[in-house]
Amino acid sequence: MTHKPVLALTTGDPAGIGPEISLRVAADRSLRDLCRLILIGDASALESIRPISKVDDAILAFPPDQIESVLGNQPHDGVVELLDCGVLPQAIPLAMPGEQGGAASFAYIRTAIELARAGMLDGVVTAPVNKLAWSLAGVTHPGHTEAFAEYTNSQRVAMLMYSDKLAVGLVTCHQSLATVPDALTVEGIVATGELLHESMEKIRGRKPRLGVLGLNPHAGESGLFGHEERRVIGPAVNQLRAQGIDADGPIPPDSAFTAKSLSRYDAFVCMYHDQGLIPFKMVSFDDGVNVTMGLPFVRTSVDHGTAYDLAGRGVAGITSLVAAVKLAAQLATKLTG
Amino acid sequence: MTHKPVLALTTGDPAGIGPEISLRVAADRSLRDLCRLILIGDASALESIRPISKVDDAILAFPPDQIESVLGNQPHDGVVELLDCGVLPQAIPLAMPGEQGGAASFAYIRTAIELARAGMLDGVVTAPVNKLAWSLAGVTHPGHTEAFAEYTNSQRVAMLMYSDKLAVGLVTCHQSLATVPDALTVEGIVATGELLHESMEKIRGRKPRLGVLGLNPHAGESGLFGHEERRVIGPAVNQLRAQGIDADGPIPPDSAFTAKSLSRYDAFVCMYHDQGLIPFKMVSFDDGVNVTMGLPFVRTSVDHGTAYDLAGRGVAGITSLVAAVKLAAQLATKLTG
Repeated sequence: MTHKPVLALTTGDPAGIGPEISLRVAADRSLRDLCRLILIGDASALESIRPISKVDDAILAFPPDQIESVLGNQPHDGVVELLDCGVLPQAIPLAMPGEQGGAASFAYIRTAIELARAGMLDGVVTAPVNKLAWSLAGVTHPGHTEAFAEYTNSQRVAMLMYSDKLAVGLVTCHQSLATVPDALTVEGIVATGELLHESMEKIRGRKPRLGVLGLNPHAGESGLFGHEERRVIGPAVNQLRAQGIDADGPIPPDSAFTAKSLSRYDAFVCMYHDQGLIPFKMVSFDDGVNVTMGLPFVRTSVDHGTAYDLAGRGVAGITSLVAAVKLAAQLATKLTG
Repeated sequence: MTHKPVLALTTGDPAGIGPEISLRVAADRSLRDLCRLILIGDASALESIRPISKVDDAILAFPPDQIESVLGNQPHDGVVELLDCGVLPQAIPLAMPGEQGGAASFAYIRTAIELARAGMLDGVVTAPVNKLAWSLAGVTHPGHTEAFAEYTNSQRVAMLMYSDKLAVGLVTCHQSLATVPDALTVEGIVATGELLHESMEKIRGRKPRLGVLGLNPHAGESGLFGHEERRVIGPAVNQLRAQGIDADGPIPPDSAFTAKSLSRYDAFVCMYHDQGLIPFKMVSFDDGVNVTMGLPFVRTSVDHGTAYDLAGRGVAGITSLVAAVKLAAQLATKLTG
């Protein structure tokens, strides 16, 4: 049997739109059939934003050590469940990055990771944090993904950007383009291919077909424009195939995302950030979900930032966060089913 | 006053679809108001393909040394003018790359370049050649663009991919990704920006707005993911602005081609082949035109290959070649106007 997955939604930087959109998503009736959603944040921030969020539900705030007992009971209709980290005694100023918001948003993530590692959660969905706020709070991780990898001791994680229109897995991500060619290894490409295969199989409910991109123009043009296709990408494709994964490549990057090619593959293994993100943002600007593959639990994230300019105005959109929750529920349901 | 520009259309590899689509385009009445089109090829190849091309026009074949006298007369309705290079005494086998086709297609280009340099032509439009056929014939240029640059002693040429939907100018092109970062210089980026500005001003009929892309993820994220934005791209943008060119950047590559950004700029300066070609082929797969900027005359080309599988079947599409002729006529008219 499948049980309804338990997902945490970390509410992100309290100075941004995170608390508002998290509250609205937690109160969304349509998501309740898919998962049980526990907010992780500060009661002060959530209560202060409730009026402009247009959410009528009561907020049931409980301390971290009560999570087991909360999960032991059925959730109540009209009640949003909030694990109150109690980092912020009162609401902080909105609309700018600050040390308090950075420290708080980092604490929410640490809490979520601990609970997921302890088996209390099937997955974590994250509202946006701000890198400058983290830096002001002395948090040195470049972003969510790196923090999740470190605190779960995950050796090999990879980013999947997913929407109904396009799915791209990244072999390398947040690094300079100059360092990409040497960072490509057969093992790294195979690992991303395996993770992408596994995620897409859960999403599609069948064996997916993967397109593996070349690195160079025309996929190297037989070595004329680079050798990575022969040295690492081709061998990685062969290894994936030998493992029974339906992988094709190296395919020329500039024709990978034409309509014809998009209809041929379920997902693409991309060698670097912009090779995947340029096409992804062209077709899925505001409904994309960021999935961290390779963690011991499901983790998805919105595809946008803290949007300080919209904070506290009640106008932020929840499309991407709803998509992130739905995808996490889908991935987690099948994982535990 | 403006005179109607004289354009050569080199008919490409005689074993591919080049002669067929060139003949159909030369017979297209709608193009005759825009330019005077002279085919450059072999009479044997053109005559043999005429039946399946469904072209009723007569072919007026003349030897190269007659070009001045031909151009001195008005063209006749229902007559296609062909400068017969006389390389192939008879038609060659279709549908495969060969030495004869390689040598012939190269000879057409050399002839076109000589005539353009001598001032007989305002521009050259090229049907597709095949790299393997060139190689079999001992031609070592990687492609059209390099041959045009060499035989015109052009120091700084750059590729523009143009369609009604998107225009991208490439700072670097057919080289491995690993060699791109070191190949970027302030001078090179500025030169591409100047050429793109000049071309787009002719196309738009007004001063264009250029978006200059970063090289790295998030345009370097303040140096965290690479320094080319600070070292060369930012300074190049400043220099372009100081010259009165409306340039903006470095902009993060992954958000450059979203709908919002596309509406903001007339054209984009891209740092490497796939940064421009991935988005270009997504939005303009079969109506793109390849423009070589920086030559002493106009040169455009189709955005597809010899399509050997379609050769001799009368089914090849002319959309891209028609677009290439129209754009060349537009660029050449304004150049000489």
